[in-house]
Amino acid sequence: MDAARSPRITPVILAGGAGSRLWPLSRPGRPKPLIALSGKESMLRVTASRVVDPKRFAPPIIVCSEDIAHAVEAELDDAALLILEPEGRNTAPAIALAALNVEPDALLLVCPSDHVIADEAAFLAAVDVAQPAALEGWLVTFGIKPDRAATGYGYIERGESLGRGIFKTASFREKPDTATAEGWVAGGQHDWNAGIFLFRAGDYLQALGAHEPKVLEAASKAVSAQRREGRRAWPDSQAFAASPSVSIDYAVMEKASRVAVAPVDMGWSDAGSWDALHELGPLDADGNLLLGDVAAPESANCLVRGERVKVVALGVRDLIIVATGDGVLVVPRGDSQKVRDAGALLEKMREKK
Amino acid sequence: MDAARSPRITPVILAGGAGSRLWPLSRPGRPKPLIALSGKESMLRVTASRVVDPKRFAPPIIVCSEDIAHAVEAELDDAALLILEPEGRNTAPAIALAALNVEPDALLLVCPSDHVIADEAAFLAAVDVAQPAALEGWLVTFGIKPDRAATGYGYIERGESLGRGIFKTASFREKPDTATAEGWVAGGQHDWNAGIFLFRAGDYLQALGAHEPKVLEAASKAVSAQRREGRRAWPDSQAFAASPSVSIDYAVMEKASRVAVAPVDMGWSDAGSWDALHELGPLDADGNLLLGDVAAPESANCLVRGERVKVVALGVRDLIIVATGDGVLVVPRGDSQKVRDAGALLEKMREKK
Repeated sequence: MDAARSPRITPVILAGGAGSRLWPLSRPGRPKPLIALSGKESMLRVTASRVVDPKRFAPPIIVCSEDIAHAVEAELDDAALLILEPEGRNTAPAIALAALNVEPDALLLVCPSDHVIADEAAFLAAVDVAQPAALEGWLVTFGIKPDRAATGYGYIERGESLGRGIFKTASFREKPDTATAEGWVAGGQHDWNAGIFLFRAGDYLQALGAHEPKVLEAASKAVSAQRREGRRAWPDSQAFAASPSVSIDYAVMEKASRVAVAPVDMGWSDAGSWDALHELGPLDADGNLLLGDVAAPESANCLVRGERVKVVALGVRDLIIVATGDGVLVVPRGDSQKVRDAGALLEKMREKK
Repeated sequence: MDAARSPRITPVILAGGAGSRLWPLSRPGRPKPLIALSGKESMLRVTASRVVDPKRFAPPIIVCSEDIAHAVEAELDDAALLILEPEGRNTAPAIALAALNVEPDALLLVCPSDHVIADEAAFLAAVDVAQPAALEGWLVTFGIKPDRAATGYGYIERGESLGRGIFKTASFREKPDTATAEGWVAGGQHDWNAGIFLFRAGDYLQALGAHEPKVLEAASKAVSAQRREGRRAWPDSQAFAASPSVSIDYAVMEKASRVAVAPVDMGWSDAGSWDALHELGPLDADGNLLLGDVAAPESANCLVRGERVKVVALGVRDLIIVATGDGVLVVPRGDSQKVRDAGALLEKMREKK
């Protein structure tokens, strides 16, 4: 299709996640979107730079907490609006805040700011594929072809084809057990839910009102009473506090009738754990992913990362070693899902001091 | 014997070692004697506090390099003299500098400043045992009963008894192979050479002149021309540079005729590697030695140490993990002898930057 003749899309970048499994790099006040996981640019900057083509995209709306607003602005050359969530209430209310700050027929592309997309051209092509459906009132989600029976993701089951590479969704299913996930992967009808969505603001709000009216009501009141200063907007905190804390998947996508999925193969990773990052590589000849001022003689299949600190991993195998100037993590490869608790443990140690 | 009626002993504390196997805690400018390996007091302070009884000991002489002189003074409440070696030339010249700065009949107790002695009473009792022999002109060394067939130490073979717990030495033998070490340990006639000596200054210098005259000549000239300021003495660097670099064992103890050994069981460790320190403990119920702001859930048989940095070791086994604010080491337990090269590697990385 001819992007120049279509209405421009407004990216809504969600920058609220903590990334607690990425301690010690992520931590309160320095959440995952602000980390340069690849060692160069922050996840947020990488996310924003994917949707920067002015023919296709309007300047983005960022939803984040106030304590990182300054850091977020420093990462972005151009943002239409920073919506400062009074508190984190999960994605359904956060997206409602954005949708209520634009015209009802504005097309919103909701993007988490802490995922990796290796093939940006494929991503943009999928957005082009999804756009006509969104303009017809579909709530479109993007489905990632699973390459393993992951149990930590949500899955989307494809239903009937809507043509042009889009399918009506048959069901949304949260984190399955291994056997179920294996069946889905073998069946070929399920995709991972990447948390990326394209829809008109009004269509989202209408579905939200139908299925989670308390969220819509709270967000509407919060935006009606919001304070605005330059590019920053502060929705009313008291009104927003009345919203249930609920994900867009649970609140809307699993329940609404006009929900579609656009399958896309774009080298996606949620980059949600050190293991996921090790898989992304690039690995050296010994299977090591080395980042920063590190040395790993006689070591294999390790992720070794040093930020403002030198790290020597000497003759070790299958370890994740991440060090900053004030925190060090060592965990076997494959166990990095456990890090969330470790980070909490350390924060507790910090408080005691 | 009645210590009060004997001449007081002058401790000579050698604080020249780098301890390069203890990276990242030890490093240039912060050698092992200045590290609080037990987490509380520096090795140097602990060493000095062993020989502080004024009935037995005169204030100590410290031999060290000038770049750590200030740090050394800060560690010691009372030192007679800091002899600042112009350069490290191993122990024979260093001890000669001390011997030339006292009267010939002064009794010198030469102590490395980077070893652990758990049973200080046993150590002091051994000094009492050795003192009469030293006053009779013997060069007395202290022998540690081996508890394993270590190949990294020197061994002293006991010869005929001189009575009162002292033996003439039959031979000094440097680092043996494993089979030889096993034979010695089984035979019961060999002790480890701990590098601790008691002798009169004049007896040492006489033996040094007989067997390594160039060392004596260089040290004598260096002390004749030494500059003195307060408690600090600077032997002449040009004169000292002419000395061969040689250990007291090789220069004197292996060659002199009146050499004796006082075996002593005093919980000695050279604390020369992270593995040696792990063995010293104290270990928790999971076999972990944890020092500093660290957590090791589900981990076992590890040494985890954090200095000015928080460390989480999550579900790992048999690892040594040592972190400071600017360096991190991870190495399997049992391999910490390899750390010397790692430290060198890192220093090289540092220079390149």
